[in-house]
Amino acid sequence: MRNLTLLTDLYELTMMNGYLDCDMADREAVFDLFFRKTEQLDLALVAGLEQAIEYIDNLSFDSDDINYLKSLNLFGEKFFERLKKFKFSGDIYGMKEGEIAFPNEPILTIKAPLFEAQLIETALLNIINHQTLIATKTMKITQESEGAVAEFGLRRAQGPDAGIYGSRASIIGGCTSTSNVMAGKLFGVPVSGTHAHSWVMSFSSELEAFRAYASIYPQKCLLLVDTYDTLKSGIPNAITVFKELRAKGFEPIGIRIDSGDLAYLTKESRKMLDSEGFKGVKIFASGDIDEDIINSLKGQQAKIDSWGIGTKLITGYPMSALGGVYKMAGIEENKVFEPKMKISDTDAKITNPGFKSVYRIYDEDGMAAADLIALRDEKFDTKSPLTIFHPVETWKKKTFTKYSMRDLTIPIYLSGEKVYKIPPLSDTVMYAKKCRDEFWEEYRRLVNPHVYKVDLSDGLYDLKKQLLYQARLNN
Amino acid sequence: MRNLTLLTDLYELTMMNGYLDCDMADREAVFDLFFRKTEQLDLALVAGLEQAIEYIDNLSFDSDDINYLKSLNLFGEKFFERLKKFKFSGDIYGMKEGEIAFPNEPILTIKAPLFEAQLIETALLNIINHQTLIATKTMKITQESEGAVAEFGLRRAQGPDAGIYGSRASIIGGCTSTSNVMAGKLFGVPVSGTHAHSWVMSFSSELEAFRAYASIYPQKCLLLVDTYDTLKSGIPNAITVFKELRAKGFEPIGIRIDSGDLAYLTKESRKMLDSEGFKGVKIFASGDIDEDIINSLKGQQAKIDSWGIGTKLITGYPMSALGGVYKMAGIEENKVFEPKMKISDTDAKITNPGFKSVYRIYDEDGMAAADLIALRDEKFDTKSPLTIFHPVETWKKKTFTKYSMRDLTIPIYLSGEKVYKIPPLSDTVMYAKKCRDEFWEEYRRLVNPHVYKVDLSDGLYDLKKQLLYQARLNN
Repeated sequence: MRNLTLLTDLYELTMMNGYLDCDMADREAVFDLFFRKTEQLDLALVAGLEQAIEYIDNLSFDSDDINYLKSLNLFGEKFFERLKKFKFSGDIYGMKEGEIAFPNEPILTIKAPLFEAQLIETALLNIINHQTLIATKTMKITQESEGAVAEFGLRRAQGPDAGIYGSRASIIGGCTSTSNVMAGKLFGVPVSGTHAHSWVMSFSSELEAFRAYASIYPQKCLLLVDTYDTLKSGIPNAITVFKELRAKGFEPIGIRIDSGDLAYLTKESRKMLDSEGFKGVKIFASGDIDEDIINSLKGQQAKIDSWGIGTKLITGYPMSALGGVYKMAGIEENKVFEPKMKISDTDAKITNPGFKSVYRIYDEDGMAAADLIALRDEKFDTKSPLTIFHPVETWKKKTFTKYSMRDLTIPIYLSGEKVYKIPPLSDTVMYAKKCRDEFWEEYRRLVNPHVYKVDLSDGLYDLKKQLLYQARLNN
Repeated sequence: MRNLTLLTDLYELTMMNGYLDCDMADREAVFDLFFRKTEQLDLALVAGLEQAIEYIDNLSFDSDDINYLKSLNLFGEKFFERLKKFKFSGDIYGMKEGEIAFPNEPILTIKAPLFEAQLIETALLNIINHQTLIATKTMKITQESEGAVAEFGLRRAQGPDAGIYGSRASIIGGCTSTSNVMAGKLFGVPVSGTHAHSWVMSFSSELEAFRAYASIYPQKCLLLVDTYDTLKSGIPNAITVFKELRAKGFEPIGIRIDSGDLAYLTKESRKMLDSEGFKGVKIFASGDIDEDIINSLKGQQAKIDSWGIGTKLITGYPMSALGGVYKMAGIEENKVFEPKMKISDTDAKITNPGFKSVYRIYDEDGMAAADLIALRDEKFDTKSPLTIFHPVETWKKKTFTKYSMRDLTIPIYLSGEKVYKIPPLSDTVMYAKKCRDEFWEEYRRLVNPHVYKVDLSDGLYDLKKQLLYQARLNN
């Protein structure tokens, strides 16, 4: 594992040095990592916890790091002494990978000495923001595609890690394979891929190239047919080779089209293949696809069995970042925990104070009905009815009588000890599917989704009102 | 250095195994890495060559890699024998980092045994696509900002590498510092950053927080003023602390505003600071900024001296990928080099065949006047006039009489030996500035830039026509 201890913003270090100087370094603080609602983001599929844990486990300033920091002439000797023995000693609560999170819900909550909680802000955001973005984008794509989706984006990913961990997140989001060999090796996920245009161009004719491919991979014969002319050359040559293959006792797998008008070309290709007796041959489409293009192609009755999706999946396009933030929710003052909130003229930027949990409320059928952000010490009794209300339009209420609740944020570290066992990725894939299936399709559809209720508990609502009131008094 | 040898698409390996089977693995092939014009991309600032070189230098399949590949049951024993002794043995020509490249111009040209050239496609694209995207985005931002730009994007970057190498690319693109401590250490670039909202929230009042900061960093006192209320609380408290600081003999550096209406808040803050005798105190702005917002703020006479730019810079937003491709331009057949091209109904997707150079033509004043993509064996004599013509609208011609030419693509590897010395990053920063300054501002402006001529040489134009004609005959 790489040591990413210096993967932090300089201001985390200047603040840490300052806290030490002010004798505040060991005050216990609570920070929440969450994202805000945007036009493009109603809900997210959480990913990246495993790499966040690896990061925490590997935290350690080596002598090279210390020497570099000394060279900045910003910090005192006491600071370096403390960095040398740095080890995370706090608690982390968080949502499991595969969980569905909504805006303002803490995905991670860190309760730790201020000195430690501040250091880890940047890397935790980097890791969770990235993988959650890609898992969420992939979920949108795979819920629209009827066929399997392969992740093909490595060449367009924003650097090696974006390809490697983006590929991992895409598997959590619902891709069934990746073209990325390193991701395949690291995470044990299926790899897929056949040949590129360069294979065809390396031979003196397309037919010769297809024949060579079929003879080397007779059981996995999938041919890219758009190097020169899909319908006039690619498909006829593929059919010739498929017939030869069948004569040798092998069934061809499919063809891939990577350019041109995919609706027209796949419909024509399907007809040509069918009429020559290759109804079982699958059509794979790739090239600048995402959930919107999938929907458009479906509307045009394109004949596509499987998808290879690259650029827009691996970069999250049109979003380029999840926009997750890491905000202080409280700090110990004179041995007492004081809830804190960031105040802003923009309502959406006011944070939720206190040490919190996130509950998912399920109806009798086990479907998700609403979420409740609550203070961690509030108790709920599901034998009594529960009334929740909209946090702004408070007259909007809903009462549950037969319901169950689940705390989505579970302990990951307690007093610096890891108490969570990272599941195998295949379990996480199944867990993500289970979590998605708890939501009616209406909440997940791409256009005008039904708004899922995320309300504040009585305790949290009262605390927030009280802190806002105090802030007004002070200004 | 990490070994990124498996950072490749599976189809590169299936093709390599196939080439070996067909006895084609050692045929010399030429591939070009280039990008295509898009609505958002007229020109690019090249970056990433240093990491591309590190990747090539570290290519090696270890026994773990081989065992993993064996587990896929796709490849023959001959293939693994060859992988075990894999070493890049070809030539690479390329543009230096900092060079300005236009659509269709080879940024890298690989001339190597087909087996080798195919393997390295994916990682080279990943590295060059990423860093060139970020350097280009940063160039747009820094050419609009009048003040210095600090790169603040690590938390929103698409994974650790995107933060680290994106930061490197942003320095090439014109940023003067980064918040990313690891990038600072790795690349020796200036790091910057002061404090976050959490610093202010950790104290019982904003004034106390500012006082503490000023006392720890009296010579670097830059205060974030928007935690509670910028004009009613942040600026008045900052002024109080600045006065106390001045009384102790220190001049404050500035204030930072990270939210709210930056035009209004910076103008009001400037007035308040000026009227209290702090005309020298700088105003730093951050928060969801890019070149368009900079221009809008300039139009509103916002008072901003320096910028901290995060999300949109480090992700290239609204572009999420450069879209670079790696296309075969020729291959040895029966010991003779045969130029190749990909044919498409879309004119923009037809590639340029042959082993090529890219020349920049300069006018008498040393300003860039046009580029010429030519065959590498064409000779030009700048003592004779040179007539260039538009590659599609061929009646559009231009003749140069007093001019000079420079081949932008220089040898990086020859026969597997690295012949290029990677310059220090500070030299690359200066080189990038020099390259940009060779272009009139009209070519670089954001809206409706003057179209820069990128033409094809007579030799390349004739070759392309001839291959297109042959392809038509064959279909």
